[in-house]
Amino acid sequence: MKLVRYGAKGSEKPALVDSEGQLRDLSAHINDITGDMLDDGTLDNLRSLDPNNLPIVEGDPRIAPCVGDIGKFLCIGLNYSDHAAETGADIPEHPILFFKANSAVIGAYDDVIMPRGSTHTDWECELGVVIGKTAKYVSKVDALECVAGYCIVNDVSERHFQTQLTGQWTKGKSCDTFGPTGPWLVTRDEVPDPQSLGMSLDVNGQRMQTGNTATMIFSVAEIIEHLSQLFTLHPGDVISTGTPPGVGMGIKPEPVYLKKGDVMELRIDGLGVQRQEVGRDD
Amino acid sequence: MKLVRYGAKGSEKPALVDSEGQLRDLSAHINDITGDMLDDGTLDNLRSLDPNNLPIVEGDPRIAPCVGDIGKFLCIGLNYSDHAAETGADIPEHPILFFKANSAVIGAYDDVIMPRGSTHTDWECELGVVIGKTAKYVSKVDALECVAGYCIVNDVSERHFQTQLTGQWTKGKSCDTFGPTGPWLVTRDEVPDPQSLGMSLDVNGQRMQTGNTATMIFSVAEIIEHLSQLFTLHPGDVISTGTPPGVGMGIKPEPVYLKKGDVMELRIDGLGVQRQEVGRDD
Repeated sequence: MKLVRYGAKGSEKPALVDSEGQLRDLSAHINDITGDMLDDGTLDNLRSLDPNNLPIVEGDPRIAPCVGDIGKFLCIGLNYSDHAAETGADIPEHPILFFKANSAVIGAYDDVIMPRGSTHTDWECELGVVIGKTAKYVSKVDALECVAGYCIVNDVSERHFQTQLTGQWTKGKSCDTFGPTGPWLVTRDEVPDPQSLGMSLDVNGQRMQTGNTATMIFSVAEIIEHLSQLFTLHPGDVISTGTPPGVGMGIKPEPVYLKKGDVMELRIDGLGVQRQEVGRDD
Repeated sequence: MKLVRYGAKGSEKPALVDSEGQLRDLSAHINDITGDMLDDGTLDNLRSLDPNNLPIVEGDPRIAPCVGDIGKFLCIGLNYSDHAAETGADIPEHPILFFKANSAVIGAYDDVIMPRGSTHTDWECELGVVIGKTAKYVSKVDALECVAGYCIVNDVSERHFQTQLTGQWTKGKSCDTFGPTGPWLVTRDEVPDPQSLGMSLDVNGQRMQTGNTATMIFSVAEIIEHLSQLFTLHPGDVISTGTPPGVGMGIKPEPVYLKKGDVMELRIDGLGVQRQEVGRDD
């Protein structure tokens, strides 16, 4: 099942994507796609509906972030062995965790706006994991049962803010619009193996990132196990699981960063396509 | 005005503290104390009420976190010159930012529970700043107008999780119950100078931290200015502004950490008292 939120910010409605790719409104069944409806029972109920009986969403509405009211937006750093090799970093002993402000989250096709003074804004195509069931002290064997589904995340990153403004990466990760999330929340039954998904990111039609979740250092299950020893993962939390090689910062001989008018296009197998145009805030 | 939320988790009600220290229920006027009622107009309306006409809250209810639905819980590290000297750290060039998971937030008198495996849980008495007005690209001259009020925060920190689990402090800051916030949200008209507040923290009746917000490296206004260049601060966001000397990690010749049954008591001038007993999760 591919769940979607559509409509203007603050008035998003829930829908699903039918087999022909049309949006079918779910407002008669759920209020929104948020943590409180991501349990297996509610998802099973939605799955049992006949999409042909749901109203077609007319027009071409904005596609909103695929989860509303995100509690924690957790990001894992340096989690692809080929990306770690590219940056020269050591393989981390545990998943590197930082937070992205949930106020940075936007829809998959919304504009990414560089903040004032930004000169080092970069892209990161990542597999997003949406928690559906409360997870505390879970083992990796049980971890994937806590997942409602998967989505694409662009972990947009201002490298100067991230590394030159005194400690802690989060400054460069939390700028407004730096978290495109969606377009779809694809329920986990449609993603039998989250560790074999091809992924790519283009800038202005040129392929920049090519990867596969098979080269993750810590699998989705291992990340959930680790984080759930530290704190509770709640339904509606999102984990972005790191990026494969090909970010702008790593380009030789000179890094390449985004500029106004650039267009990013992100793909992960089975999870759809994101596309953002870059703007500036000055 | 001293605003309070009371009641069990998930069914908190709003109240104010009258001149005799009694809780007066505000449910007839606002639904809760959350970002959407922290604007100056709503606060002025509440201020115009005669507390004697508000129902007295009977019994001895739980005191909840003084703000509900916190969006971002932002923490500033190493922000007291005397604490930086104590740890031997350099004075940072910009405010050091990390996030505390909003799922860590508890009431001022709730138990702090050490997670499984924790051996290095420490205390940090801090001035909390509650945002009342959207702030983006504000200057420090205008910054305090974006503040709804102030509260005490205990930035409880697992030092091993913070420093030994691979990068980024947030792992040690985000454990469940590691964010006691309150008891009161004291509106900014009652805190004419946030840079002259005495503060202290006792463990089992012994004074551990003594400080004053006068020794902050970055003032509240400077912190808001800096953060608002990076991203939007929204009503209901909380900024915890760093801790003065006297944390357990800094005690010579050997650090001292919390153990089950310990009691922490925190005070900041005009903002009330917090008190937490320490438990363990195993």
